[in-house]
Formats: sequence, structure tokens, C-alpha cells
Amino acid sequence: MRCLLVVAITSSGFNLSKHGVLEVKSSKPGPPQQEISVEDVTALVQGFVDDAGLREGLCTVVSKHTTTGITINEFEKRLATDLRQWLLELAPPDARSVAATANPKTYLHNDIDQRPDGEAERLRCIENGWDIDDPEQLAKWRSQEPINAHSHLHAMLLGSTEAIPVAEGKLLLGQWQSIMLVDLDGPRDRLLGVSVLGFT
Amino acid sequence: MRCLLVVAITSSGFNLSKHGVLEVKSSKPGPPQQEISVEDVTALVQGFVDDAGLREGLCTVVSKHTTTGITINEFEKRLATDLRQWLLELAPPDARSVAATANPKTYLHNDIDQRPDGEAERLRCIENGWDIDDPEQLAKWRSQEPINAHSHLHAMLLGSTEAIPVAEGKLLLGQWQSIMLVDLDGPRDRLLGVSVLGFT
Amino acid sequence: MRCLLVVAITSSGFNLSKHGVLEVKSSKPGPPQQEISVEDVTALVQGFVDDAGLREGLCTVVSKHTTTGITINEFEKRLATDLRQWLLELAPPDARSVAATANPKTYLHNDIDQRPDGEAERLRCIENGWDIDDPEQLAKWRSQEPINAHSHLHAMLLGSTEAIPVAEGKLLLGQWQSIMLVDLDGPRDRLLGVSVLGFT
Repeated sequence: MRCLLVVAITSSGFNLSKHGVLEVKSSKPGPPQQEISVEDVTALVQGFVDDAGLREGLCTVVSKHTTTGITINEFEKRLATDLRQWLLELAPPDARSVAATANPKTYLHNDIDQRPDGEAERLRCIENGWDIDDPEQLAKWRSQEPINAHSHLHAMLLGSTEAIPVAEGKLLLGQWQSIMLVDLDGPRDRLLGVSVLGFT
Repeated sequence: MRCLLVVAITSSGFNLSKHGVLEVKSSKPGPPQQEISVEDVTALVQGFVDDAGLREGLCTVVSKHTTTGITINEFEKRLATDLRQWLLELAPPDARSVAATANPKTYLHNDIDQRPDGEAERLRCIENGWDIDDPEQLAKWRSQEPINAHSHLHAMLLGSTEAIPVAEGKLLLGQWQSIMLVDLDGPRDRLLGVSVLGFT
Repeated sequence: MRCLLVVAITSSGFNLSKHGVLEVKSSKPGPPQQEISVEDVTALVQGFVDDAGLREGLCTVVSKHTTTGITINEFEKRLATDLRQWLLELAPPDARSVAATANPKTYLHNDIDQRPDGEAERLRCIENGWDIDDPEQLAKWRSQEPINAHSHLHAMLLGSTEAIPVAEGKLLLGQWQSIMLVDLDGPRDRLLGVSVLGFT
């Protein structure tokens, strides 16, 4: 084992835990169009680490949505378009979606008139402010539910959390690596969870 | 950068590290049928955080198996079925598996009579209690090996670890997000690793 | 909730944060051939934890490249070949790549003569030591750019970071689990980021 870089501290001194929810503005104004878009959030995350004053420890980046994913890779405009195209092929949109492509699929999640399917989803809706026992509220909830099962599958492929070491105040990323928030059902203004744990 | 929520502590006081291995009971009793099933483990993980007394820090959830995955998304019954169907299309079961579908594949990992293939796997078997240098034990090991290469591939797609911030004692999840244990070769009673690090 | 194992400490004593960048030597000498290969790095990571003296806490393993991924699964030679085959089917190499298979794709990222595409990539190149405003340097940069969009997509599928709990000095992995560095555009000598946070 050849170790190229080591930064180490042992300390009984100050310790830090800080959490933030950051707003990532949509790059395209207007209503969401069930599109896939990629935002480089590296500077935003590094800014949070700087403000928190973390010197050594760990930074965790989490998606706050079920149709956004977090990935670490090269942020290159044309690669972002390749990613979009690839995801649409791996899990194509539903025939009923405005994003439907040449070879659409059918997903059970998109049978909105069959939902909520069971007590668990009913409770979850009520918890989130939709009184769906009221037929009018139910109709309203159903009418705003997007046809986006494929977006959920894309999010599960990309993953929702990344844990990135911080040394001497900097995110320990490779030279071509960026942290990216991938909007799989947008573009919309989105939230990004960022958290640091370690030493000031 | 607009920051919607910040919780921060700096402390030289008490610190906490706690690890647990939790049992997640199969929802379907009986022998495993090489099925894909999804369990919402959010309440289980939050319960562990509560018991540990973690107020600020990080909770890590890890799969303890090579054919289970961890994902964070919407727990919705019909979406779980869509996920199952999608995974079976992306990496279909082997023609030799009881789970074989219309378009089966052939995987080298499932040529059980060719395994262990090399010294590394031989040692791993012995380490795990199978004295496969004994022909009888070898036959026994081979006969219990499941035909599940596709399940391993599914697990690698979903991922095995998630790091979730904890603020004021609560897992920092979005309103529609659940932590899910996906059994890719079950259903069976499974183990879930949970770990907290931070401040009480 | 049945808890099978619990290790817990609360302490106001010493705390540890340590980061390392480890070299993982290519298993095949010679120039990279746009091949996919899998290295078991579990012993390397455990060695880092041992050297750091971490007893309780978290170990984070991160890819330092945009065409390597980190995954936790069974390290079995034949399964590694299945993984390679599966990835090549999910995101086949470009027709222009030396790794092109029977059903090649075309990716925008591989139109090297169209890149850098925009100011962001131009700046990134300059940041990384390529003065591409100079036509000679630009030609040089373009000629060394690999035709590897598919490798980036593979890396995003596998993911770039894993957070693994450490209890009593040991990585908390299941008995068949290994930490693997997957080289998606190699084999080459690669770097692996490892970081520990917790208690000695």
C-alpha cells in the first residue's frame, strides 16, 4: 500500500455538526416539462463547507426529492445530454407522460386513478397535507400527481446520498470530478441537503 | 446560495458512535422464491437513532448482504412493483433460475460446477465455514448456492450504503422519501446495518 | 425491532479524522485498453483503518476518477466478468472506441472535435493544465481524450462513494461483502480516497 497523501488530526478540541438545506434554482424558468437536467453544485457545497468552517471531516450531500439524484462525475455539457438520453432508454417515460418517447412503457405507479393503493399511501398523503378522504381533495391530489415512475427509477439508479471527505477545508474530489444534482422530472427549483461533521 | 434551514452545533462535549445490526423480518413466510421485495425501514432506522440518543450528526444505513440493496425514494406499493419489473428487464434472471422470465440470460457466476474459480474464492468459502476441500462438503456447498447473478447486479445498481444527516434527532429526509431495503433474492429475514456518529 | 449487535461509546476523549489517497496498481501492465476490471480493495481499506487507529466511527471510500466506480458486493472472478458484460450491454461503447462491441452507440461526449463545448469546460481544461487557447495545445488535448462516454455512465450507475461503519476497529461488512474498485476505462494505476472519522 503506497499512500500518496495523508492528512490526520487527533483532537479533543472543538467538534462541528452543521446541516443545511440549499435552494438550487432551475436553469430554465417556466413550468416543469418532465425534462432531465444536470446542475453542477460543487461550488455551492464547497461554499457551505467554507461557511461552516469545517477543516477536517466529512461532507454529506443528499437529495431531498424522490425524482432528483446526486452523482459525482465529470460535468461536461455534452456528457449531460448523453446521460439524459441513456436514462430515457433504460427506463423510458410512460406512454401517458408528456415526455413519452418512441418506445414508451406502462408503469403501475402512473395509474393515478388506482391510488392511493392501500393504507400506507393514504396516511402518507394525509401526513403531507392532502385530506384525500374528501372526494374533492382526492380529485385535486390525483390531478397534480405527475406521470413520472420512470423519474423515480432514474433517481434510484443514480442514488440519493454521497459522503465526501473534507481535508484542510476542501472537498476531496478528483480533478475532473463535480458533484451534480440531476433533476429527473424538471426543471424545477429544487432543494439540496448538505451536512458537515468533523473538526473546525 | 439561499440557505433555507441551518442547524449547527460546535461542542467539545460528549460524542457518540453507535452501531447496530437490525433484523428485518420477511413479509412473506416460507422458503425464499428468488423474488424481489421492498421493505420500508425508515421507522426502524429512526427508532435506532432515537434509542441511541443522537441529536446532531450522521446516520449510515448499510446492506449486510450481497443480494440486498439500500435505496431512498418514495415507498409506494405500485412503484415497488414497477421497480421489480424494471430490474428484471435490466438484468434478467438466468435460464437456470426458478425466477427465469421470457428472455433469460446466462451468467458465468451461475456455473456452480465451475466454482470455486480460483484460490480467492476457495479461501473465502473456507473462511465462511465451508470446508470445500472435502468433496462431500463441496457438493453440499454447490447444491445450496443460489442461481442469482442477476440479484448481485441489481444490488450493485441500487447500492449498499446511504449516509443520512440527523438534525434535532430526526433523519433529514424529504417529505416523500423513505429508506428502503430491497431484497433481490428473497423474501428472507435479512440484516440491516445502522450506525450513528455525532452528538447526543 | 430486534437488535442483534450493538457497539456504542460516548466519549469526551480523543477524536480522529484522517484522509488518505491510496494507489491501486493495475493488475495488467501495459497501456490501458478501455477494459473493465474489478479490484478487491477491502484489505487495503482495512489496512488504512488499522494504521489510523480508528476503533469506532465511519470509513468513507471514494473514487478519485470519473471512470472508476466503488461498489460493495461479492468479489468472485466469474461475477466480475458478468458485471463487465452487463455494463457493456447497458451502455455499449461508442462505435469510434477501440472497445466497440457488436451494437455500438454514438455519444455526444465523444465528438472530441466539438469540445470544449462552452466556457465551463474551457476553464476546467485550463485549470487542469491544458492551455487550450493555444491551437497546438488544443490539438494535443483532443488527441489524448479517450472515447469513453460509456465508462462515465457505468461509473454513475455504480456510484462513487460508500460510507462503511467501523466497530471495534473492523469494517462492518457482511461475510460475503467486499469493497471493490471497478475500473471502467483501464486497466490503469488508479487512486482511491479513504477517510476515517470517529474515535481511537
